[in-house]
Amino acid sequence: MDKVIGIDVGGTSIKVGLFSPKGELLEERKIPTPALVDEDAYRVVTDGLVRILTAHDSVPEDVIACGLDIPGPVADDGTVGFLPNIQLDAEGLVHAISAALPSATIAFVNDANAAALGELWAGVAHGASSFVLIALGTGVGAGVVVNRRLVAGAFGAGGEIGHITVNKGETRTCGCGRKGCLEQYASAKGVVRMYLEECEAHGVTPVHVEHATDTLSVFRALAAGDDCAKIAVDKMCDYLAFAMAQVSCVVDPAMFLLGGGVAGAFATFAPELRRRFQQYALPTCKDVAIEAASLGNQAAMYGCAYEALRLRAESLGQPLPAAAVVAEQQ
Amino acid sequence: MDKVIGIDVGGTSIKVGLFSPKGELLEERKIPTPALVDEDAYRVVTDGLVRILTAHDSVPEDVIACGLDIPGPVADDGTVGFLPNIQLDAEGLVHAISAALPSATIAFVNDANAAALGELWAGVAHGASSFVLIALGTGVGAGVVVNRRLVAGAFGAGGEIGHITVNKGETRTCGCGRKGCLEQYASAKGVVRMYLEECEAHGVTPVHVEHATDTLSVFRALAAGDDCAKIAVDKMCDYLAFAMAQVSCVVDPAMFLLGGGVAGAFATFAPELRRRFQQYALPTCKDVAIEAASLGNQAAMYGCAYEALRLRAESLGQPLPAAAVVAEQQ
Repeated sequence: MDKVIGIDVGGTSIKVGLFSPKGELLEERKIPTPALVDEDAYRVVTDGLVRILTAHDSVPEDVIACGLDIPGPVADDGTVGFLPNIQLDAEGLVHAISAALPSATIAFVNDANAAALGELWAGVAHGASSFVLIALGTGVGAGVVVNRRLVAGAFGAGGEIGHITVNKGETRTCGCGRKGCLEQYASAKGVVRMYLEECEAHGVTPVHVEHATDTLSVFRALAAGDDCAKIAVDKMCDYLAFAMAQVSCVVDPAMFLLGGGVAGAFATFAPELRRRFQQYALPTCKDVAIEAASLGNQAAMYGCAYEALRLRAESLGQPLPAAAVVAEQQ
Repeated sequence: MDKVIGIDVGGTSIKVGLFSPKGELLEERKIPTPALVDEDAYRVVTDGLVRILTAHDSVPEDVIACGLDIPGPVADDGTVGFLPNIQLDAEGLVHAISAALPSATIAFVNDANAAALGELWAGVAHGASSFVLIALGTGVGAGVVVNRRLVAGAFGAGGEIGHITVNKGETRTCGCGRKGCLEQYASAKGVVRMYLEECEAHGVTPVHVEHATDTLSVFRALAAGDDCAKIAVDKMCDYLAFAMAQVSCVVDPAMFLLGGGVAGAFATFAPELRRRFQQYALPTCKDVAIEAASLGNQAAMYGCAYEALRLRAESLGQPLPAAAVVAEQQ
């Protein structure tokens, strides 16, 4: 029976999802791995894949497509760019996986892009012809889907919405070397920093925050009536809405989806975000849907499996199998 | 012999291009028309089409695809939005053309989007997988092509790059009702206005400008060493480069093409535009090609014909015929 695999590549472990070609998740397993740069490490991965397959009465030859999502740029043609956050020899790993899964089409996808494809395959964007997923986490990533296809970008920068300039007056430098990027305000780090700044500016003692990305404490403070938390979250909404309005002028998606850790508080900030988007957007697209993503941290695993499956269908000149089910909302 | 027609719909006339399915322009004719809102007007159009076909030993049944480009929004699903600048009953005209060309697939395309598709079919973007055409004319229009498909947008606002916000501090209102849009600085009107403002601010008598969109005089002044013209054109480049850098963060195209009347001076401002783009862009995509469009005011006529042909191929499940020639640069 045909199987599809999605591998979410992280810093210290990988998460493997085994799927049917219709997008049903059959099993999910975490495999701790050393740096993915030599044969021993590759074997940890491929042995793990074989064990999962065996548990489902499958052999490696059953796998028709295997996608990997990675935290770094992947261009239109599948080329993997520089990966600052993980140790990975992409070429070596592909070689090892190709040897272990001889029938599989392999695909690399950027993690935020993969999350968008996951939502398209089996999430809330199922059936949408175009949408933009914005993942608010440690940074701000995004995936743009247009005409039901991912926009990876000629240089792998498709969906780098976190680096839209939203504040030309910013003096601090973003991780990208430029100033005033959306990521500086709408990432977990940005929200926490803006909260602490507002407290200082107002001479108020902030609530205790565990670490630089502890937005949970900020949103708890907001719920408890903390004015500085309100200002910080409103600012986040303002910059995010402004950036989304620019995105609409370029691709005019049918839907925006908010994902990532910060979006855990989506219900809290959604009304303010929608209100500000309406102020900033071109009148013709101001009523676009702005919703929460549905697949949580499984989205990328779904999406890279889907992309490998799509690549295979394209190379065979076949249509994609229809998704059987839309995964339950988490 | 199969034929394809592209109709460029303007305010007082239409321009008709007769093409082979491979994109060879066989004839181009202008047909003066009254407002396209009644049967008499439709007949002027359809009679004109038949005359052109007859001159090429063809009958209406030979036309397999006919596209129309219009100066207004057209959504993903082909729906035509509000058209402020022309009198056109889109439904009535389609009905009349369908009756006159019984074998033709009909498509509507926004004019700037059509120009982009023209460049893809037979212009300088031939073979590019992604690019953005920016038309600097009375306004600033644009067409975004990704994965070799037009991004029309869910609400017809795909490629509304003229309405990217480039100056949050602007007090004047753009035609769209918002403030600080690219169009306020990079359109012909914007360039002329900025020139006159600079002259006033510096207490200098400007060169004579014929009308509000006479950029020719401004570029002539620039060539003659006029400092205020230099400041105005540099500002245009600055805002345009800033907007293009935002576009790259969304779709990361392989190429930017500059078209429209203002782009007649492309060679003059290109070095400055490229320099400023490099300053604003994400490092990974700062070396994207920035070139002049090649089909001039025929581009939209080519592009709407192409889109109709593409729609037909899609509905028949056939591949598009390969373009035979890339049109000569104008």
